[in-house]
Formats: sequence, C-alpha cells, structure tokens
Amino acid sequence: MEFSSKLLENAVNEVSQLPGIGKRTALRLMLHLLRQPENQTRQLSESLWKMREEINFCANCHNISDKKLCEICANPNRVEEIVCVVEDIRDVMAIENTSQYKGHYHVLGGKISPMDGMGPGELNIHSLVEKVKAGTVQELIFALSSTMEGDTTNFYIFKQIEPYNITTTTIARGISVGDELEYADEVTLGRSIVNRIPFETSLKNQ
Amino acid sequence: MEFSSKLLENAVNEVSQLPGIGKRTALRLMLHLLRQPENQTRQLSESLWKMREEINFCANCHNISDKKLCEICANPNRVEEIVCVVEDIRDVMAIENTSQYKGHYHVLGGKISPMDGMGPGELNIHSLVEKVKAGTVQELIFALSSTMEGDTTNFYIFKQIEPYNITTTTIARGISVGDELEYADEVTLGRSIVNRIPFETSLKNQ
Repeated sequence: MEFSSKLLENAVNEVSQLPGIGKRTALRLMLHLLRQPENQTRQLSESLWKMREEINFCANCHNISDKKLCEICANPNRVEEIVCVVEDIRDVMAIENTSQYKGHYHVLGGKISPMDGMGPGELNIHSLVEKVKAGTVQELIFALSSTMEGDTTNFYIFKQIEPYNITTTTIARGISVGDELEYADEVTLGRSIVNRIPFETSLKNQ
Repeated sequence: MEFSSKLLENAVNEVSQLPGIGKRTALRLMLHLLRQPENQTRQLSESLWKMREEINFCANCHNISDKKLCEICANPNRVEEIVCVVEDIRDVMAIENTSQYKGHYHVLGGKISPMDGMGPGELNIHSLVEKVKAGTVQELIFALSSTMEGDTTNFYIFKQIEPYNITTTTIARGISVGDELEYADEVTLGRSIVNRIPFETSLKNQ
C-alpha cells in the first residue's frame, strides 16, 4: 500500500500490528477517526497510553487492578482457603458473572506453551506454590481451558504442590445447560457420563 | 462487563467505539497490548494522536496529504485537464495502484446520503464546481460506487457543471477480468453488453 501521507501510514502500520487487524481494516478505522471530532482520538490515544503506563497487577492474585490488592483479594467476605487457578482476567470476569464462586483467584497470565515461547518461568506459578506452601490454601480449583496446553499447565502445577497435600479439583466438563445430546461431541458426552453426579445434588443446584 | 480496573475499562470503552469492534474484541486487544513491551503502546498512542492533530488535506483535491499540495497535484507530469471524482483516499489508492491513470483527482469525502446526515454541503462539491468554472478542466470522470447514493451524487454534480459544457464520463461497469459469465449478476452482464466496445480497442488495452 502506498500512502499519500506519512502520518496516516504510521498510524495504519501501528494499528495493523494488533492481532486480527490487517492494513485495510486499519485504514478504515483511521478514516473513521478522521471523520470524528478530534476529541475522540485524543481520548482514545490517552486511554491507551494511560492504561499501559499505569496498569497494576494485584500483589496477591496477579489480576489487573488499580490498587495494590484487587477488590476480590481485599474483600474480607471472600473465602481465601479456596483458590481458583485461571489463565487471565477474562476468565475471572466470566466466573464472577456466574455469582457462584466466593473464593479467591490466581491469574497465571497464560498457559505453558513452548511453541509460543511460554515456559513455566513466564507464568505466575512460583507465587502460587509459595501461597500453597504458606498453608492457608485448602483447595485449588483448576479452571484452565481443556486443551493440551491447559492440561500440561494443570499437571505441572499439580506436581509442584503435591507434597503439600491439599485438595485439587477441576471444573466439571459436560453438556451445556440447554444443549441437545445429539449435537454434543463424543468426548464431552463421554466425560459427562463418566463424571455423572447424584440426581439429588443436581436438584439442589437448580 | 464489570472490570477490576478503571484504566482497563476506559481503554476498552474507547476502543469499542471504533466501527466493527465490540467490547470483547477491545478487551482482547488491550490484553494483547499489556503483554507487549510498553514501547508498542506508546508508539500506537502517539501515532494516532499525531495523525489526528497534524493531518492535512490537499488544497486542490482534498486528499489526505502532509504538504499543502498532495504529491499528485504537485506533480507537473500529471494531466490537470482530466479530473477523477472519488469518494475517499482509498479509491485514490486503488486507482493509483492500476498505474492506468495520469490525471488529477477530486476527493469528495463521502456521498450524498440524507439517511447518514450527508448533504451536498458536507462534501467537497463547491470547490469542484469552482474548479470547472475556472476553465482548466476538460473531462470529469465519475468513479463513485454504483449505489443509489453514488448515482445521486453523480447526478447532483452533473447538474451543477452542465452549463460549463465539459466532457463527463463514468468508469466502465462490466464483467471482471477473469470472471465466468454464468456467475455474473444480470445487471452487470446486461450493462456489459449494452456498453460493448470495438474488439480492436480491447486488443490495444491488453
């Protein structure tokens, strides 16, 4: 692409470095910004830079937070004996939306994936093991996605904390509520039969 | 969506105001930026703001340009007697890529579309009529998209410049080079038959 303006070219190049945004989309977005009041671009530009520069991670669970401790870790009503291990803030938000969980979180910041250059050293695993070692944690819930990387990460953490003898659980895999059995994949359906639960328990959860 | 950080929330809200980007995509982009070096976000943020603040439009053709006159208008080898009327810079780039056009452009900045609040007053039509009135222009090529809005805009401009007696043309509509006739829509195929050209002419264009 040949641009008639270096300013436009720079902006398009920077924006097209974002994942899923190519040069054409970037150009479309820039032309949109040029048609809007200057104010909008200033706010966009400032909010991006402010976020990147001032962002803070909770000292306890590594979630994104504006304070030293995030709201969940600082809340005395949350059960600190139960810790849910997740990949990033999106998983925290998804679980919080269910209003079903009252424990703490531990945000790893990714999964072990040598292909993407993510080793255990890049993740917040050390602090998790230290937390378990300290003795407060009684149950660790693994809530990573069930891919090879997720399973590897679960297993790696499990091996590290095995000596400390705490309960480890993983979220239930099964047929989504409201889904038809005939359209479910066989692995999920198979797991949902193997890990079936007492009917009385399911009644209570409704 | 409930965010654990006001900074993140602001950035997501600003980014999701861009067309085609929702809150989820915006959050994904922000998490990507947070994983990248700070430098990348600074460059992105600066290039956006710099573009919006310092952008300049060519005094002659209204194309985006860093100087007072864009490179095309300032180039003495381009034929200023022929002016191609286009919607925005993307169309200029597309036509320039063909290397088939040696004339000038006139960028309208949109099409007449009352539904979107775009009247003739919002577009660079007045300066085009003035240019024609001045007497240098001999041919005007309409290269707007062939939608109702495009046709309306063409007709509006045509009516304004009719008294000055210059040649007006419109780009040829027809079957794309390499396309199969059986898959072409009937309007396009119909036009390509009505506006057929001498075979010898087509040989020369190859």
